[in-house]
Amino acid sequence: MGVAPLTPLAQLDRAADYFPRRAAYRFEDATTSYDELREQVRRLAAYLRDSGVRPGDRVAVLARNVPLSLLAHFAVPYAGAVLVALNHRLAGRELQAILTHAEPRLLLVESHLAGLGDEAVVGLDVPAVTDEVALAAEPADVPRQHPVTDELSLITINYTSGTTGTPKGVMYRHRGAALQSIAMAYHLRLEMDSVYLWTLPMFHCNGWSFPWAVAAAGATSLCTDTTDPERLWELIRKERVTHFCAAPTLLTSLLTSPGAAAVEHPLTVATGGAPPTPALIRRAEQLGLHVVHLYGLTETYGPSLLCEWQPEWDALDADARADKLSRQGIPNITAPTVTLEPVPGDDGRGLAEVTLEGNTVMAGYYRDEEATARASVDGTRFRTGDLGVQHEDRYYQLQDRAKDIIISGGENISSIEVERTLAEHPAVSESAVVGRPDDHWGEVPVAYVTLSGDAEVTEQELIDFVRSRIAHFKAPKRVVFGPLPKTATGKIQKFELRRRTDAG
Amino acid sequence: MGVAPLTPLAQLDRAADYFPRRAAYRFEDATTSYDELREQVRRLAAYLRDSGVRPGDRVAVLARNVPLSLLAHFAVPYAGAVLVALNHRLAGRELQAILTHAEPRLLLVESHLAGLGDEAVVGLDVPAVTDEVALAAEPADVPRQHPVTDELSLITINYTSGTTGTPKGVMYRHRGAALQSIAMAYHLRLEMDSVYLWTLPMFHCNGWSFPWAVAAAGATSLCTDTTDPERLWELIRKERVTHFCAAPTLLTSLLTSPGAAAVEHPLTVATGGAPPTPALIRRAEQLGLHVVHLYGLTETYGPSLLCEWQPEWDALDADARADKLSRQGIPNITAPTVTLEPVPGDDGRGLAEVTLEGNTVMAGYYRDEEATARASVDGTRFRTGDLGVQHEDRYYQLQDRAKDIIISGGENISSIEVERTLAEHPAVSESAVVGRPDDHWGEVPVAYVTLSGDAEVTEQELIDFVRSRIAHFKAPKRVVFGPLPKTATGKIQKFELRRRTDAG
Repeated sequence: MGVAPLTPLAQLDRAADYFPRRAAYRFEDATTSYDELREQVRRLAAYLRDSGVRPGDRVAVLARNVPLSLLAHFAVPYAGAVLVALNHRLAGRELQAILTHAEPRLLLVESHLAGLGDEAVVGLDVPAVTDEVALAAEPADVPRQHPVTDELSLITINYTSGTTGTPKGVMYRHRGAALQSIAMAYHLRLEMDSVYLWTLPMFHCNGWSFPWAVAAAGATSLCTDTTDPERLWELIRKERVTHFCAAPTLLTSLLTSPGAAAVEHPLTVATGGAPPTPALIRRAEQLGLHVVHLYGLTETYGPSLLCEWQPEWDALDADARADKLSRQGIPNITAPTVTLEPVPGDDGRGLAEVTLEGNTVMAGYYRDEEATARASVDGTRFRTGDLGVQHEDRYYQLQDRAKDIIISGGENISSIEVERTLAEHPAVSESAVVGRPDDHWGEVPVAYVTLSGDAEVTEQELIDFVRSRIAHFKAPKRVVFGPLPKTATGKIQKFELRRRTDAG
Repeated sequence: MGVAPLTPLAQLDRAADYFPRRAAYRFEDATTSYDELREQVRRLAAYLRDSGVRPGDRVAVLARNVPLSLLAHFAVPYAGAVLVALNHRLAGRELQAILTHAEPRLLLVESHLAGLGDEAVVGLDVPAVTDEVALAAEPADVPRQHPVTDELSLITINYTSGTTGTPKGVMYRHRGAALQSIAMAYHLRLEMDSVYLWTLPMFHCNGWSFPWAVAAAGATSLCTDTTDPERLWELIRKERVTHFCAAPTLLTSLLTSPGAAAVEHPLTVATGGAPPTPALIRRAEQLGLHVVHLYGLTETYGPSLLCEWQPEWDALDADARADKLSRQGIPNITAPTVTLEPVPGDDGRGLAEVTLEGNTVMAGYYRDEEATARASVDGTRFRTGDLGVQHEDRYYQLQDRAKDIIISGGENISSIEVERTLAEHPAVSESAVVGRPDDHWGEVPVAYVTLSGDAEVTEQELIDFVRSRIAHFKAPKRVVFGPLPKTATGKIQKFELRRRTDAG
C-alpha cells in the first residue's frame, strides 16, 4: 500500500469526481463544467486511440489558447500518449522541422490555423486533424480514471526552437508536471473560485503547468484567442479574472493600454522571462494588481524560482519594493536545488551559472543524448545558461542571460538561429546577433553583418529575407554593416557588440 | 536528470537556505530561526549517530508539544533513522509494549516526563536520554542538506494503540509525508507570516504532517506545553496565531472557555476526529474563526479528506452551512482515491466501508504482515473501518464508525483493548464496550459486563481496575451488569448495546 503514480491527470479526475458541476473553462460566453471537460477529454482520447495512437506515441497540437489546447493537455496523456504543443507563431518550415524530429502519430489543429497546419505537415506522414473532427468519437473504451501507471513516463515534449538544425525537445514526466502544478496552485493561491485568464500561451512549457494547476484547485480556465489589451481588460472585468501570467511585454501593453483601469477585485499577475521594471511594478500596484515575479526555463517546467514576498517588504517604499521584486528569488515549494557553478574566466565579476536539480527539471532532450549531456553537470544538474548571484538575504538575481538567447515579447529567440538564417543570404559573409534592450519588447534582435567581397544588400532586404524564412518576431530590427570584433583565437566578441548596442 | 527523492526534510533545507532568519518556532517567549533550527537538528542528528543510531534504526521520543518534539521530526530522519513519537498520555506499561515492539536504539525524553520515560524502558535495552543531553553534540559530520536517497524508505512509525496484545505501528514513508505536508500547506493556506499553534499533539500522526508543512511555508510553529484553554487564548492573542488544529473536545473547551473572545485577526482552525456540531461551528463563527473540517486516520497520514468549502455555501443560513461542514468531504489535493466497499449484510442501510488508496496511505503495519493484509483490499486499498455514504453533491459523510473504536477527546480508544483489560479481572466472564455520545468528550466508553458465576464486584472497582492497567482516559465511565445480547451464532450484538446506550 501507499504508492500511487504522481500525475497531473489525477487532478482532473478529482475535479470531475468531486466538483462535477463547477466551471472548468469558459470560452466565448460558454461554460464547460468539469464533468463535461472529462467527457470531452475522453472523447478526444477515444478519437486518438481509434486513429492508431498507441502508448508512448507523440501527438502534436497547433492551437491558440482555445479549448482544444486545454483539452489536449489532458486527452493526449489520457490516451497514454505524449503531447507536443506547437508554437503557432512559428513558420511552416520551422514547424516541419519539429514534426520531423518528434514524429507524431497525428497533428491536432485549431480550424483557424488549418492553413499553417497544412504547411507544417507537407511531405510528412502526419495527418492534420481539426478539433471538430476529433471530438466526435464515442468514449466507450476510455476509462473514467486516468490510466497512468508509470510516473516517470513522458507526458509532454516541448520544443525550444525551430532552428534549421535539430530542434530540441524538452521531455517532461508525469511526476514533474504533477509537482509543478501543485507548486503553482500553492504559490499563486489558486482557489476554487479563482478565474485564470489564458494570456500565457499553453505551448510555452505547457503554460507553466497551469492547465493542471487550475484543475487541482477546482478553479476556472478562461480560454481566449486574443492578446489584444482592450479585449483582455474587458475579460478581466467581465469575468472577474483573479489570475493571469504574462511576459513583461504583454504586461506592459496591458498596463499602458487605454482600457487599463483599477480593478475592484483581487487580481494576481505572475510574470517572468525578464524582470519587471520598477515602473511596471508601480503601474501594476496603482491598478490594484498583485505582481509575482517568477523565473524558469522550458527545461524546468517553467517557473522554478519565484521572488517569494517577505512580509517585511510591505513597509519599504515603492522603489525598494520594486528592487526586491526584480530579483528571480528562491526555489518554489517543490524545491529544486540551486547550485551556482563557477564560470571559468568570468573576468572577475564573481558570476556563476545557475544550475538546477530536482523533480521539475526535464528528463532530457528527446532523441538527443549529446545535447542532454552538454546541458548537465554530472548528469544530474541542469545548466540554465543563466549567470547569477546570491544576495545577502539569499535571494538569487540573474546578472546576464546565456549569451545567445534574446527574449523578445516573452519569446525566446536563438541568436544562432538568426545568424544561420542570415548566412543563407549570398551577400552575407558573417554575422552576429545580439539583443538590444527595448521598452516594449524587453529585447529586440540587432544583427551585425560583414558582407562578402563587394556584395551589396540593404538593411531592409536582409530583414525581409529573414522574415521570409523564420518567424517574423525573430527578424532583426536593425542591421549594422561592418567588421566584427574578434578575440585572438578568432571568436566573435558578442559582449563587445552588446556594449556597442547598449551605447546606442 | 529530473528525479530527486521526495522528502519533507527538503522543506527544512529550503527554509534554512532561503529564510534563515525567519522564526521557525517560538516557545516560552524565545524565538528560534530556521538557521538555528537546522543547527539544532544537526546537533541532535550528530548525537544520535554518536549514540550508535544507524540508518533504518528506530528512535523513540516522549515529549509534549515542546521543541524536542519538533526537532525530533527533522533530526531523527536527518540521521537516517525512523521516528517513533509516543503518546505521553499512555501508561508506562503501554509505552513498554510499544518499545518492545519497535525496538528503538534509544528513547529521547522531555525532562518533564523523565519519570514516565524511566517506567517505559524498564527491563528493556533502550537508554532514555533527556533533551539537555542530546543537543550538546558537535554536528561536524552531519551534512547541511538532508541525506535521504530513497523516498520510499520509512520516516516514522506511529503506534495506534497500547493494547496488551501486539501494538500496531503504522509505517510512513518520506514520499507520503512530503506530499501530505504540501497538501496541508495548500489547503490550510499556510503562508510565510502564518503562526501555527501546537494544540494537536505531535505524536498524533506526526501532528498531521504540520511540523513539515509549517517549514514548507516558511511559517512559525508556536510550541506549547499547555492545553489549558485560558493559556491557549492568551497565546492566540499575544502571538497572533493564524492556524491551529484541534479535536472537537479541545475546540469545545476553547470556545466555551471564559477567555474566549472574538479575534481581531484571521484565525483558521482545522478540526477532525469527529464532526464539529452545528452549535460549535456557530460559536466559532461568532468568534471570527474559520473552521475547516478534516477526516483521516493514523493509517492515512492524518487528514485524507476535507470538507472543502464551496463558495456558493456562503449564501446559506447558519444551520445549512453547519450541515455542509459536518461532512467529511472529499480527497485533498494529493488525491487519495476513495472507493466505497460494500459491506456484507449491512441490513439494508446502504452503507459501505470507505477505502483509500494513494501516496498518503501507510506502507503497512510494522512487523505485522497479517494485520496489514487484513487492513487492505487487494493489497492496495486501505480499509478505514468507517462506514460512509456519498451525497448527491459528491461529498462523503461517515454514518458509523468502525464498531470497535471509540473516539474520546480526540483519542482513539479500542473497545477491544478495554474488553481485554476487563477480562483480566477474575469476576468478569465477558464484556462489551461501546461509545456513548458525550457533549464534552465526543464519546465516552461504557462497559456491559456479565459476571462469572456468583462473583461480586462493584462498578467503581472495575473502573479502578482498568485505570490501574491502561491509560485513564480509556477506562469506562459507566459499567452495566447483565447478560449480553447475541446473534444466533453467538456473536455479541454491539449495535444493540449502542442502541441501548443512546436510549439512555
